[in-house]
Amino acid sequence: MKANLRTFPFDLIRDEVRQVEDSLASQVRHFDRALEGYVSYVCGTSGKRIRPALAILSGGATGGAGEAHIRLATILEMIHVATLVHDDIIDGAEKRRDILTANAKWGNGISVLLGDCLFAHALMLSTDFEEKRVVRRIAQSANQVCTGEILQTQRRFDLQLTKGDYFRIIEMKTAALFEAACELGAALNGSEEAVCENLAQFGRNLGTAYQIYDDCLDLVGDEATAGKTLRTDLEKGKLTLPILNLLEAATEKQREKLGHLLVQKEPFDLSALANIADYEGALERSVQHARQLLREARQALIGLNGGPHAQALEQMTFFLDDLLDQCRC
Amino acid sequence: MKANLRTFPFDLIRDEVRQVEDSLASQVRHFDRALEGYVSYVCGTSGKRIRPALAILSGGATGGAGEAHIRLATILEMIHVATLVHDDIIDGAEKRRDILTANAKWGNGISVLLGDCLFAHALMLSTDFEEKRVVRRIAQSANQVCTGEILQTQRRFDLQLTKGDYFRIIEMKTAALFEAACELGAALNGSEEAVCENLAQFGRNLGTAYQIYDDCLDLVGDEATAGKTLRTDLEKGKLTLPILNLLEAATEKQREKLGHLLVQKEPFDLSALANIADYEGALERSVQHARQLLREARQALIGLNGGPHAQALEQMTFFLDDLLDQCRC
Repeated sequence: MKANLRTFPFDLIRDEVRQVEDSLASQVRHFDRALEGYVSYVCGTSGKRIRPALAILSGGATGGAGEAHIRLATILEMIHVATLVHDDIIDGAEKRRDILTANAKWGNGISVLLGDCLFAHALMLSTDFEEKRVVRRIAQSANQVCTGEILQTQRRFDLQLTKGDYFRIIEMKTAALFEAACELGAALNGSEEAVCENLAQFGRNLGTAYQIYDDCLDLVGDEATAGKTLRTDLEKGKLTLPILNLLEAATEKQREKLGHLLVQKEPFDLSALANIADYEGALERSVQHARQLLREARQALIGLNGGPHAQALEQMTFFLDDLLDQCRC
Repeated sequence: MKANLRTFPFDLIRDEVRQVEDSLASQVRHFDRALEGYVSYVCGTSGKRIRPALAILSGGATGGAGEAHIRLATILEMIHVATLVHDDIIDGAEKRRDILTANAKWGNGISVLLGDCLFAHALMLSTDFEEKRVVRRIAQSANQVCTGEILQTQRRFDLQLTKGDYFRIIEMKTAALFEAACELGAALNGSEEAVCENLAQFGRNLGTAYQIYDDCLDLVGDEATAGKTLRTDLEKGKLTLPILNLLEAATEKQREKLGHLLVQKEPFDLSALANIADYEGALERSVQHARQLLREARQALIGLNGGPHAQALEQMTFFLDDLLDQCRC
């Protein structure tokens, strides 16, 4: 199996990540018994756990990751899982990480409510934090994720979507939870405001770069490597950065042709489109943009102590940088 | 128009209810601009505003309703609206209060996310309260509503549903927000624990009685009076108290017949079933149960000062008691 973010070596925080898994598993008991099966199914199908890892690494880099960080990680991951459950309904997705989605297993009705329960439970857990800032920021980031998702859904098949719109959407739908994980990991240690803000920026940049990578992969990636169905974004009308770059550089005639393909939803050869995007440099410009974000993310780490956790955060940016090599035909 | 809970005379708190309307309307600005249309549509189609009224009356009965009560009322109503948006998706409902539902207008995808945004925004607003108890109870009650809804969905067409199950479900899906409104209306005034607990019980009983009324109305009510489509519960497999009472008193042969009708989803004459439920006393026993809950609700008010707000809370129980007269064929 080739590298993807799932294979990032989280060795340094193996114990803490296991504690997050245990904590997620133990949350199941706090739901009504009739819901346990649903909750453990969607929380247990081990995702990449990037948000938990960021919360723990950020804690480790600012004084240490303790029980509060495990709790933060659990909450953010549960919010993430809730949004995935709802995303899968909206996309009509049947499989995620090679197993059936909640909607495929139990229908849309149960899945809408299951996402709500996870969401409500995560926000309830967050009220245990003494620090008001933490409680508020968690609710805020959940809010941003939902807003980003709704904007994306609203702008499907909308050729007026600008790159500015695209970045606003992915900063909300993806980067917001990365940002909260990093910022609050530091805030829980009582770090200075500047440190929290730097880590917030690190998370925001990493999250944005990660979404660009994911979007490029959808266009040109290899399904076996990615472990999920690809080339679904265009079918669903999601205009991602490589396509927006392509549209931007197109002549009027080319634009018309692309617009016709994208909006008319006629069957068309996606691999040919990927090749055009590659040939025109639209993919490369997307990758360059992501790499610039990763450079800035590393800059934001400069004030930290340079210990192993700070180094691991930096490593994550290089790891993602390497993955971006896959984004070509 | 005959009386229903919508026509309850809220004269005493007319100003405060208007402030809640203004507050709900002004929340729209805090959402992304692209969402304003959705939010103002679903929040503005004036519901009965029972939860806001309870929060304000409970505040008025324990020292006065101020800005904090308006905020509490706004938050609880927004959570309620979020759950209605999701309910309508699950039920495939096209109209609510005579206007198109969000899902009928914009589809299920936008509606799932719109509900999420409202939910997240309400919980974010709640983090402004200094009192941790208030923040926590709001999240808890949101959690209960979602859990109640999912249990109800899970137990559709389930003839093993007991009356105990039914009461647990409606206490969560309906009474939880009534309870939170009453309890927290008092808690915001720093009331003693016993007062908060009594008002919580008042709200729980009123909410449960209200749901029983609503369930009976679905079976025997008049659509023009109710202002909504009736006789949908059985179609959707929701076994409500009059039906559970009917099943409980049935002979084995009758039970088999009813079970066949209810589970096989064959077309059957609902008005005939309503007449049977009436004839067998199953409706009357439901009404009696609701009336007993209302008596207990009034008992819970005894410790209050007996001022106009406490009297209005008591009046609400008599008003609902009168409405229960409609629950017969």
